[in-house]
Amino acid sequence: MAIVTLTTDFGTQDGYVGAMKGVLLSRAPDATIVDLTHDVPGHDVVAAAFALAQSAPHFPDRTIHVVVVDPGVGGARKPIVVDDGRQLYVGPDNGVLTLAAASPYAGTWAIEAPGFLADAPSSTFHGRDIFAVCAGRLAAGAAPHEVGPAIEPAGALPLQGEHRRDGDSLYARVVHVDRFGNLITDVRAEELPSSPRFSARGERIEGLSETYESVPRGALLAYVGSGGTLEIAVREGSASRELDVARGDAIEIRGEIRGEIRGATRGAPGAESPS
Amino acid sequence: MAIVTLTTDFGTQDGYVGAMKGVLLSRAPDATIVDLTHDVPGHDVVAAAFALAQSAPHFPDRTIHVVVVDPGVGGARKPIVVDDGRQLYVGPDNGVLTLAAASPYAGTWAIEAPGFLADAPSSTFHGRDIFAVCAGRLAAGAAPHEVGPAIEPAGALPLQGEHRRDGDSLYARVVHVDRFGNLITDVRAEELPSSPRFSARGERIEGLSETYESVPRGALLAYVGSGGTLEIAVREGSASRELDVARGDAIEIRGEIRGEIRGATRGAPGAESPS
Amino acid sequence: MAIVTLTTDFGTQDGYVGAMKGVLLSRAPDATIVDLTHDVPGHDVVAAAFALAQSAPHFPDRTIHVVVVDPGVGGARKPIVVDDGRQLYVGPDNGVLTLAAASPYAGTWAIEAPGFLADAPSSTFHGRDIFAVCAGRLAAGAAPHEVGPAIEPAGALPLQGEHRRDGDSLYARVVHVDRFGNLITDVRAEELPSSPRFSARGERIEGLSETYESVPRGALLAYVGSGGTLEIAVREGSASRELDVARGDAIEIRGEIRGEIRGATRGAPGAESPS
Repeated sequence: MAIVTLTTDFGTQDGYVGAMKGVLLSRAPDATIVDLTHDVPGHDVVAAAFALAQSAPHFPDRTIHVVVVDPGVGGARKPIVVDDGRQLYVGPDNGVLTLAAASPYAGTWAIEAPGFLADAPSSTFHGRDIFAVCAGRLAAGAAPHEVGPAIEPAGALPLQGEHRRDGDSLYARVVHVDRFGNLITDVRAEELPSSPRFSARGERIEGLSETYESVPRGALLAYVGSGGTLEIAVREGSASRELDVARGDAIEIRGEIRGEIRGATRGAPGAESPS
Repeated sequence: MAIVTLTTDFGTQDGYVGAMKGVLLSRAPDATIVDLTHDVPGHDVVAAAFALAQSAPHFPDRTIHVVVVDPGVGGARKPIVVDDGRQLYVGPDNGVLTLAAASPYAGTWAIEAPGFLADAPSSTFHGRDIFAVCAGRLAAGAAPHEVGPAIEPAGALPLQGEHRRDGDSLYARVVHVDRFGNLITDVRAEELPSSPRFSARGERIEGLSETYESVPRGALLAYVGSGGTLEIAVREGSASRELDVARGDAIEIRGEIRGEIRGATRGAPGAESPS
Repeated sequence: MAIVTLTTDFGTQDGYVGAMKGVLLSRAPDATIVDLTHDVPGHDVVAAAFALAQSAPHFPDRTIHVVVVDPGVGGARKPIVVDDGRQLYVGPDNGVLTLAAASPYAGTWAIEAPGFLADAPSSTFHGRDIFAVCAGRLAAGAAPHEVGPAIEPAGALPLQGEHRRDGDSLYARVVHVDRFGNLITDVRAEELPSSPRFSARGERIEGLSETYESVPRGALLAYVGSGGTLEIAVREGSASRELDVARGDAIEIRGEIRGEIRGATRGAPGAESPS
């Protein structure tokens, strides 16, 4: 019984997600459909990639992940299937799959073969007319190479690259702000100096905390999140609002001894980066 | 294994939807429950009817669609089951089923028979005490005519009727504004003049686009949506906000040659009208 | 096939709920996962307890309810499993389970045994690393006593206690405000005087209504809700906004004859308190 997950920026209220579920179940009545999220901010490919990367690693082998955050729908980007050797990903070739699917891929195919998309697909709703059709066929047993020709994936997200360093300072980038206003960065525990100090917008935090409860309600804390990277939070409050920090902003890190590891990665194996 | 879909205006945070799911699974433990949406605006029967109509046609035969957007709960409107010959619909007789269920119906029954509703149903939560009980019994194998006496459905939505024409102009009605702010109208591709021009609130759009990408970011475009009707959008923006246009408002259409078809319907077979 | 329900304050957009679902399905691929809600207000243990109590009683025996609203994550509160003799509850020992699980419990255990939590659980995401792991094992057939040592649960919610009386007045507490702005109180139908009059913020309501439709649109009404307690609503409007009344506020009740019952409890058996 195949598992098919759904990640979209459709919300649910217009019935678009419902249409996708109907198309899926018409082709694979025994599939288990799992909603990951339909609340990705509209057209926010980076946020979708992040959410998928939190979830996907924890699913069983051969799970099929369908992602439809696709501002270029109907345009040049191709609809693709990615097999990363463990799971399958179905979505547009706009980079949205690149954080979750382990690279290098075992294979990437463009969805072009008859039967893997509607006969006359609309140019504005590939979620229903291409991605759900294709995923339904895969869930019913089709092999990924059947969906169309093998291609090189083109899509990539804005790359993170090296962390900026400036004298004694290392700068972490905020790569996601979660529902609680926690700031999730891209600096892994191993990269932190010992006795680290953090600052953003003039506010300073001394050292790493183990739990939210180790600071008073409303206080700032820094900690290694469940994904193994530095996070900044306000206990039972919003660090994003409190500090006026958004995705893409920097957190300055200073420390006394370089090169040592302070604060072990505590994420479960396979964790990508929940708070 | 029966499929039961749910469409409500309950949100999820109060636990009302959870109660319905529990009632359903208690009567049909093997049913596949599919959330269509719980985010219909409160009491908005028209929006619920629209969302259901986007989703329902794509589901397999004999799917059971439960809809609880029911401002008249406990009042005179009857709880009903509609069989449109292909699928079953369970909800209040207030018109909410009329866009999705294909007319004329194969049958309509009032839910009155013992065992198809709770012994002492509340007067304010028929979702739990009538609709979920009835749907659970149907999912477990009961036939629709067992739920109670056959009746004539009374409910209807505000009718759309003919499009207004005025000299050379045809007026499309906005029947839905989706999450992206796209304006979905009731004028089908076949009804459009050739070389159409569109205007609303003093803004003009020349001709039909095939994809969002055919205009610059932030620009207005008109296109035939995935449901086969005229839509107006702003690429990666909100046409509703940009034009200050809401459901019920009109889009003026002018063209050079009448009676011809310009822009083929591109919706998949069975599509009702996603964006 | 085990049923596992999920109640969290995670929202869905960050992928945290998705991670939990993946962990669950990896351990119990045949489990039926049911979303109760992920829209509990952040850190609002009382609201989560209320939502769970609306839903849980309606589920089949041996359903496993997972609740992760856990502001003390990583701190002193223990992760626990409660067996109330009919269903299982998995969550933090912070009181969130106490409205739903029937007391006294058949058993309570701390989740400590190897295999019932991740090998190196994070200190900030027990939803993924403890609760989902444990629930997955229970869904796959493990017995609750296997998860760890039996303990006495410590968590309790702010207790409601006796209703305040003052001369001829009885004061109902608003224990929940639902999505529609309905005010759900803790006074049961049996406690109401005959010919009751209600007042809040200077507004008065005479007597109980049977349905919303018995008053004009926009008017206030009092009624016995589907959970068997007094509720105050505005027909197709928000009583909370209209009256400026929030959770914890009081509704004054006066009546002519004490001790009689006016307005029978109409909730279905097992109902806890939907509107």
